[in-house]
Amino acid sequence: MDVKEYEHRVQYYETDQMGIVHHSNYIRWFESARLDFMKQIGIPYRKMEEMGIISPVLSVECRYKEMVYFDDVVHIKADLIKYNGIKMEIKYTVVNEADGKICTEGSSSHCFLDKKGGILSLKKSYPDIHVLFENVKHNT
Amino acid sequence: MDVKEYEHRVQYYETDQMGIVHHSNYIRWFESARLDFMKQIGIPYRKMEEMGIISPVLSVECRYKEMVYFDDVVHIKADLIKYNGIKMEIKYTVVNEADGKICTEGSSSHCFLDKKGGILSLKKSYPDIHVLFENVKHNT
Amino acid sequence: MDVKEYEHRVQYYETDQMGIVHHSNYIRWFESARLDFMKQIGIPYRKMEEMGIISPVLSVECRYKEMVYFDDVVHIKADLIKYNGIKMEIKYTVVNEADGKICTEGSSSHCFLDKKGGILSLKKSYPDIHVLFENVKHNT
Amino acid sequence: MDVKEYEHRVQYYETDQMGIVHHSNYIRWFESARLDFMKQIGIPYRKMEEMGIISPVLSVECRYKEMVYFDDVVHIKADLIKYNGIKMEIKYTVVNEADGKICTEGSSSHCFLDKKGGILSLKKSYPDIHVLFENVKHNT
Repeated sequence: MDVKEYEHRVQYYETDQMGIVHHSNYIRWFESARLDFMKQIGIPYRKMEEMGIISPVLSVECRYKEMVYFDDVVHIKADLIKYNGIKMEIKYTVVNEADGKICTEGSSSHCFLDKKGGILSLKKSYPDIHVLFENVKHNT
Repeated sequence: MDVKEYEHRVQYYETDQMGIVHHSNYIRWFESARLDFMKQIGIPYRKMEEMGIISPVLSVECRYKEMVYFDDVVHIKADLIKYNGIKMEIKYTVVNEADGKICTEGSSSHCFLDKKGGILSLKKSYPDIHVLFENVKHNT
Repeated sequence: MDVKEYEHRVQYYETDQMGIVHHSNYIRWFESARLDFMKQIGIPYRKMEEMGIISPVLSVECRYKEMVYFDDVVHIKADLIKYNGIKMEIKYTVVNEADGKICTEGSSSHCFLDKKGGILSLKKSYPDIHVLFENVKHNT
Repeated sequence: MDVKEYEHRVQYYETDQMGIVHHSNYIRWFESARLDFMKQIGIPYRKMEEMGIISPVLSVECRYKEMVYFDDVVHIKADLIKYNGIKMEIKYTVVNEADGKICTEGSSSHCFLDKKGGILSLKKSYPDIHVLFENVKHNT
């Protein structure tokens, strides 16, 4: 399956007085890239929430390699590198369109909860969703 | 009744590459000042939401007079200038501690809704809350 | 001249616990729409800053008519409604793609400053930029 | 030396439609706690920037253990766990005042740059600052 990268143009309000993108915004872009990825593989998060499933963040990490500036365009590749029906881990690679260099790399891990906060096994409770995740899991 | 001003130290992530506070943050500070004001007069918003009342923003406006910088401390005075049981309007005056000057002024107006989105009259449905608002209303 | 509307998909991080877009984000979208508008008419803000011109916000106002939700797509029309070489005022109309309704309206006013904070007359100091603004000014 | 924890009350605009603090905000709180820590040990960041030193983020990571809600108060402990004159690493422990539990843990690493983007050795170029960092470094 061919999943497209998430594209984002850096907004002025995302800069700080260092003159670069504030580092917290990458964590937000990871979320945008993740939800776009999920939509592309057939699991729109809006619908997931309507079904009563939420997917909170368990951890996140980010390594900053190159500075990114206002009005730059970045391309974010999201890869599902771990998934077992209960947890997933996604890796992000951010490339600056201007020079083609990787400017940032990171990852986030997630579980699935029902509306009462109980841990969900998608494998057991939502096998249709489970299959979609399984199909795009990378072996790395 | 003596309502204290809301105090805020400017955070680095609130600056932009112009080297000043990004103008959108004042709208957020107004919210902080408003909710702090409501708590002080006996109407904590967290409890209001638990009772099934939400208070969305109908409009907001802000005038920027003096630039505010990272690590500055601002004092925000919130005044209930209009209230009729159905709508309220709050005025904000932001003073920079460094020089005592008014750096920003603004206002926001709000209604009250129940969980289904229906318009609430606090006067009719929550007279206890209504009285608390009435007591602090300024005549301007 | 045909200026395209700015398009934005609502991100998850832009919602609040009311389940809608936090009202402060519209102020940020106004900025995105304004800078996109300026780029389209031949005045990219990045280049303006490199030339030593900044354009701080003097005032902003926003009226919220309809709630906007996560993953909605909004179209923001920016119109230069006032411009005299020293100040400008831009009006924003936000339409939700889902139903074609105007969900939000607002405006912002701006001046132009040099790097030392001195007020600039674009008409005098940057006639090339001045003409571009003049050409798209709406008579309303 | 006795460094006080950084205290923060959760703002409404920091929540998302999951009804909890959006995870990106912890990265911002880490920054606030870090800059407060630096000020307490005698290295206010505002002054550092005025001296021509910036301290960009090289990496950040965060583990979410307990959900945090609107109006909760959190206490953030910042510890300098690594420092060698060229790089530093800070560890953060976030405790919710409501129950005294650790809700979040994380860390960030930083270097020091001059205004032209060149790597700085504080040990060589700013020995006075270097000593202040050395004095609070934890041996863990």
